Amino acid sequence: MLKLYGYWRSSAAYRVRIALNLKGLDADLLSVHLVKDGGEQHKADYAKLNPQELVPTLVDIDDSGNELVLSQSMAILEYLEDSYPQSALLPTDAKSKALVRALALSIACEIHPLNNLKVLQYLTGEIGIADEAKSAWYHHWIHEGFGALEQQLEQHAGRFCFGDSVTLVDLCLIPQVYNAHRFKVDLTRYANILRVSENCNQLDAFIQAMPENQFDAV
Amino acid sequence: MLKLYGYWRSSAAYRVRIALNLKGLDADLLSVHLVKDGGEQHKADYAKLNPQELVPTLVDIDDSGNELVLSQSMAILEYLEDSYPQSALLPTDAKSKALVRALALSIACEIHPLNNLKVLQYLTGEIGIADEAKSAWYHHWIHEGFGALEQQLEQHAGRFCFGDSVTLVDLCLIPQVYNAHRFKVDLTRYANILRVSENCNQLDAFIQAMPENQFDAV
Repeated sequence: MLKLYGYWRSSAAYRVRIALNLKGLDADLLSVHLVKDGGEQHKADYAKLNPQELVPTLVDIDDSGNELVLSQSMAILEYLEDSYPQSALLPTDAKSKALVRALALSIACEIHPLNNLKVLQYLTGEIGIADEAKSAWYHHWIHEGFGALEQQLEQHAGRFCFGDSVTLVDLCLIPQVYNAHRFKVDLTRYANILRVSENCNQLDAFIQAMPENQFDAV
Repeated sequence: MLKLYGYWRSSAAYRVRIALNLKGLDADLLSVHLVKDGGEQHKADYAKLNPQELVPTLVDIDDSGNELVLSQSMAILEYLEDSYPQSALLPTDAKSKALVRALALSIACEIHPLNNLKVLQYLTGEIGIADEAKSAWYHHWIHEGFGALEQQLEQHAGRFCFGDSVTLVDLCLIPQVYNAHRFKVDLTRYANILRVSENCNQLDAFIQAMPENQFDAV
């Protein structure tokens, strides 16, 4: 039995929702409101489950009742891939697998961590920057990351980011593109990124994982 | 044949150096000076190799002369693990493997990206914060990340971060602790982190990977 603690607008949770849908896995979805009352992720019960006080958290309970509690979306995706191999998200040969991981991590380690809620809160709170500077910060890391990724997709993309099958890269890209639109980043210069996004967003697994299609969407 | 483009002070390159040493792999080490002349990582030749303009980059050339060019240290570590399985850095069972990845990524995705050279440069440059605020930023993300990790190590650590064998978590932790010391972060409250660090730093593979022991150390 799978339980996923997430939030409709969390792009890290969005990645995992896509994977669950692609693999046809049923999971109980539990909402952790990241903003209300200073953020439910900081409440004692949740912090005990996930000391990083972030979403998502996946709980996998086996037939004997043993619980695996897992944080970090990229670790969750690798776990789902290892344990539920249907609809593979990674190529089988070592070199292609490594390239897919590198592209996915270029989003997960270089863009997303900088544009996270907690970081934007620190910038406007402790550092005290204005909305305009916050927006410039957000746009800067998207352009830096997408600029490099666009060049790499030129070499690797087919219908999706890496050839013609959906991989971990697409699961990271689509939530990041969704967020870029939300923050009004002009993406017209990224032809490959836009084309792949359109292709992904025609698939049911991606559509059902969209923030606005979640039960806790506001 | 392996080539590693890195820099003595890069903690992402430091992770890969430890892995190469543990696995007994010889690699040509090439230095990319991250500061001189605005940063050699931005020069055309290197940017062609790694469009993200970051270190490390691993190049693996097989017997037929085919080159794999790989960015992102966590993808490089997984590739080395897949292709050179000696001295395993991941447990074999899916649940332990997932927990190790989650702990490693809690450093690689939550601490390191925020305290990276390019981020500190943006904060002092474009945003214009003073040295004191930069230092507070750095300390904040170390304490937030290490606070959570310390709790998780309480449950998982033995001689090393995950039981009594070196894993990916240790390869991420040691460079981060090294940097924390460099930025004068008081780590006394993190007993498990300090104990594991001491144990790691007694091993040749870790000693030989230290920044000050690199040929390009200043």
